[in-house]
Amino acid sequence: MKHEPRKKLGSNIRQLRRSQGLSQEKLAEKADLHRTYIGAIERGERNVSLDNIVAIAHALGVPASKLLEGVD
Amino acid sequence: MKHEPRKKLGSNIRQLRRSQGLSQEKLAEKADLHRTYIGAIERGERNVSLDNIVAIAHALGVPASKLLEGVD
Repeated sequence: MKHEPRKKLGSNIRQLRRSQGLSQEKLAEKADLHRTYIGAIERGERNVSLDNIVAIAHALGVPASKLLEGVD
Repeated sequence: MKHEPRKKLGSNIRQLRRSQGLSQEKLAEKADLHRTYIGAIERGERNVSLDNIVAIAHALGVPASKLLEGVD
């Protein structure tokens, strides 16, 4: 499907966020992004840019490449 | 530096492209992107979106996560 990569990225982020006990709001704050934007990313609704992928990875304390695991 | 991630992504793409003996033009054609856009990405000048990261990864026959190796 055309938007499978977006959905996989979103589910990777959600899984990592939850495993750290973070709310969307807290992750958004750490990444300097808006909470509703994090929600949309996790639902696979956004074509996230490299800069924001890196910001979210930093906020989660993981390498950016980890967020793209299984994205194809 | 603020734009280090863009530069690292670009150098990863350039390295993989060259290792396959592909020109920028050929990679652009395979990824359905413009040659000048590939050039700008390789120079770290663009904030590439997930969809285009995936398109380039497909064109190079590698997982999308590979293009982000060392991006931090």
